[in-house]
Amino acid sequence: METVRILEVKQSVFANNDAQADKLRQELKQKGIYLLNLMSSPGSGKTTTLTRLINLLKDELKIGVMEADIDSDVDAVTISATGVKAIQLHTGGMCHLDASMTRQGLEGLDAGEADLVVLENVGNLVCPAEFDTGAVKNMAILSVPEGHDKPLKYPLMFQVCDVVLINKIDVAPYFDFDLKKCTEYIHMRNPKAVIFPICAKTGDGVDAVANWLKEEVNNWKGD
Amino acid sequence: METVRILEVKQSVFANNDAQADKLRQELKQKGIYLLNLMSSPGSGKTTTLTRLINLLKDELKIGVMEADIDSDVDAVTISATGVKAIQLHTGGMCHLDASMTRQGLEGLDAGEADLVVLENVGNLVCPAEFDTGAVKNMAILSVPEGHDKPLKYPLMFQVCDVVLINKIDVAPYFDFDLKKCTEYIHMRNPKAVIFPICAKTGDGVDAVANWLKEEVNNWKGD
Repeated sequence: METVRILEVKQSVFANNDAQADKLRQELKQKGIYLLNLMSSPGSGKTTTLTRLINLLKDELKIGVMEADIDSDVDAVTISATGVKAIQLHTGGMCHLDASMTRQGLEGLDAGEADLVVLENVGNLVCPAEFDTGAVKNMAILSVPEGHDKPLKYPLMFQVCDVVLINKIDVAPYFDFDLKKCTEYIHMRNPKAVIFPICAKTGDGVDAVANWLKEEVNNWKGD
Repeated sequence: METVRILEVKQSVFANNDAQADKLRQELKQKGIYLLNLMSSPGSGKTTTLTRLINLLKDELKIGVMEADIDSDVDAVTISATGVKAIQLHTGGMCHLDASMTRQGLEGLDAGEADLVVLENVGNLVCPAEFDTGAVKNMAILSVPEGHDKPLKYPLMFQVCDVVLINKIDVAPYFDFDLKKCTEYIHMRNPKAVIFPICAKTGDGVDAVANWLKEEVNNWKGD
């Protein structure tokens, strides 16, 4: 079994996370690195989606991945198997990553020449939404089995996300999931949110997300 | 549409949550009220399971329910329809409930003569596990679509839970979910955890949970 580096990241000593996040974003801009913050509940399919995206993009973009978890390294091992640089971040029980923890992760990853770095945040629809990590964009995954009412109950997550992937669309027939209502609820929180229905397991719809992301990275580097 | 009372609960001013929780538990013992803390990820089926349990138990036990959410009152409205006393607790963005917030909820619910009060905690596999609410027992729900590896990634939740319901067992054929491995991982965290596979949607297996809970309540009152 492949082994990956595990880095223990510590909570910030800085009071002003927003300022730290802006600073990190500016530095990444100068280096031409696009940082994507990927958030969702536990088990929504972050790692599977990411594996699909990497396989679609790795020939064109240099990619690095930071897998944040409270414990275990199963996700970083999975991502490593795609051939991209991956590091596991352990948060020591913390339920989210702030900008300082993200910076520690980037240093550990040594993402010097990467075009795209994805931070897979801790599985949690609440706390990660409260902390700007320094990412260019926030992406959330909501999976069909979780239910279409989640944007009503977890408003901040959908408010701060630029893109929402609705995953596990293949099992929609077995659940009472209303895609139209879900879209409506997401847009109540953020009218500009881009929504992609996907099935990470089969790969359905993931190409559209990959295209969106490629354009994002190119715009960021080209601005 | 039914309306329910919404109570804004405030974070504790007490530094020692554990002591506050023990105090609350003792008071509930004296009053003969059994408090169950129900936790899970968003969309694992807490409210549906609870509705099933209430319908099986409400003729024998006097039940009250506190529905904690960051926003919305959809769950308390659903529970109210079963005829039991329900209150919606809003946490003002907080990702968990502590003992003091639970106490505020109990006072708002006015659960004077209840045999059983269920606190449906904020949907989150991380933070609620860190705070003793004063409950007699902690119950977690893990649903099949979330994956059997969750006890590896969210250790504390499964460590503090006395009972784990594995929900949505009806869709197991459509997911790569290994019940044997899941059981093994849960018992790595807590060897004494009682595990019930259920399908809240159809009601399969919920009677066993109801029987367990009835016995728990009777033992608590009879001790």
